[in-house]
Amino acid sequence: MKHLTAAILVIGNEVLSGRTREANAYYAAGKLFAAGCKLGEVAIIPDDRDAIISTLNRLRQQFDAVITSGGIGPTHDDITMESIAAAFGVELIEHDYIVQAMTEHFGAEGLNEGRRRMSRVPQGARLIRCEKTIAPGAHIGNVYILAGVPYIFESQIDSILHQFGDRPYLRSEIEVALAESLFAGPLTIIQERYADIEVGSYPGRCGPNPCGKICLSGQDAERLQQAVGEVEKMLAELRIL
Amino acid sequence: MKHLTAAILVIGNEVLSGRTREANAYYAAGKLFAAGCKLGEVAIIPDDRDAIISTLNRLRQQFDAVITSGGIGPTHDDITMESIAAAFGVELIEHDYIVQAMTEHFGAEGLNEGRRRMSRVPQGARLIRCEKTIAPGAHIGNVYILAGVPYIFESQIDSILHQFGDRPYLRSEIEVALAESLFAGPLTIIQERYADIEVGSYPGRCGPNPCGKICLSGQDAERLQQAVGEVEKMLAELRIL
Repeated sequence: MKHLTAAILVIGNEVLSGRTREANAYYAAGKLFAAGCKLGEVAIIPDDRDAIISTLNRLRQQFDAVITSGGIGPTHDDITMESIAAAFGVELIEHDYIVQAMTEHFGAEGLNEGRRRMSRVPQGARLIRCEKTIAPGAHIGNVYILAGVPYIFESQIDSILHQFGDRPYLRSEIEVALAESLFAGPLTIIQERYADIEVGSYPGRCGPNPCGKICLSGQDAERLQQAVGEVEKMLAELRIL
Repeated sequence: MKHLTAAILVIGNEVLSGRTREANAYYAAGKLFAAGCKLGEVAIIPDDRDAIISTLNRLRQQFDAVITSGGIGPTHDDITMESIAAAFGVELIEHDYIVQAMTEHFGAEGLNEGRRRMSRVPQGARLIRCEKTIAPGAHIGNVYILAGVPYIFESQIDSILHQFGDRPYLRSEIEVALAESLFAGPLTIIQERYADIEVGSYPGRCGPNPCGKICLSGQDAERLQQAVGEVEKMLAELRIL
């Protein structure tokens, strides 16, 4: 069964301190939308065991699947694998396949403590391998544990994406050079008539005059096109007034 | 009393659908770090009443302050003010000051339903005014309700920042051209000796060779400089081996 709803859990002090602009959730959000999976929440939390356990346990009950990003490297602040094992109440084990792959790549003498840390996954987890790194991600229950380094995260997302979504979401945008408050009323009426289409209004900044975009999305191309037609008609009528 | 911990609650379907790359939490994170306030969580949730109420009530108990972004415009999907009023168990009221400012700006006949929506705040809230917009944000309890449009959000953050943080956080970064697993052990020992300094390691991608940055932060400049010195000494010793 494919996952129709998902949450993303970003684990990393570097995002919360403003050092790093979050990029992985943004990448995954676009991919999930296109796959037809509804992203219901993104949580960004620190490299903190209690925060990881409580947030993961909340999200994995609330959504079909959870994708985590970050904290699976070899250093002291990489505590995602052990925290997720604790969240599931299972042991953290050294995985034979990873130890073997590390040994082949680095030699037996290259298998230092840092690399041994990267060989540990929650008991019962399956590996998420990708060509970008020897250290795999892991999949346990409805949780996918991925890397924080963006080019590895992206490769891992692409490799698990076939398990997410059923019917792709589609999006249409209409530019508007009117103050939002002038079309808010009629737009509400259109939204009420198209419960299967999500209608949003996003003002922007384009000099002294109001401008922005009305954004419509949904899974049925024909219904989406109908709703777009109604918005365009509504805007044309407003411009005449 | 200044807020020493904070959470940011971003409310907006456009971020979860991958349409818009989140920018406001990133901006606020950098400002809070520099002010000396610890950002403990960023949550990105949809324009959904139940999600707003439950997430806000969790975060405002867990942190000194919560900053929300988005959902305070005039359209049907702008439900942040009414949801936060419900979270606090108070009425949503039309605020005299805002009605008056809107009337002065747009004329009595320009005070349409959309603009009336933007005049409503939770009962007991104080206004957060800024020069970028007539419609203010609001402050109730330990919650600051700000706009989603980035240039307005930024102006509002700047106007409330004096209430956050005590002693600024400082950051130092050291470039490293070594695989993380080679210095993970010694770095752990340094972290253990500097409990007041946060030490992170962030690998990057620079061609075939390993490279990355070790990032240290803390509130005491002297201690930070000492820890940086120890990391540099450790790396110099590793390079000789």
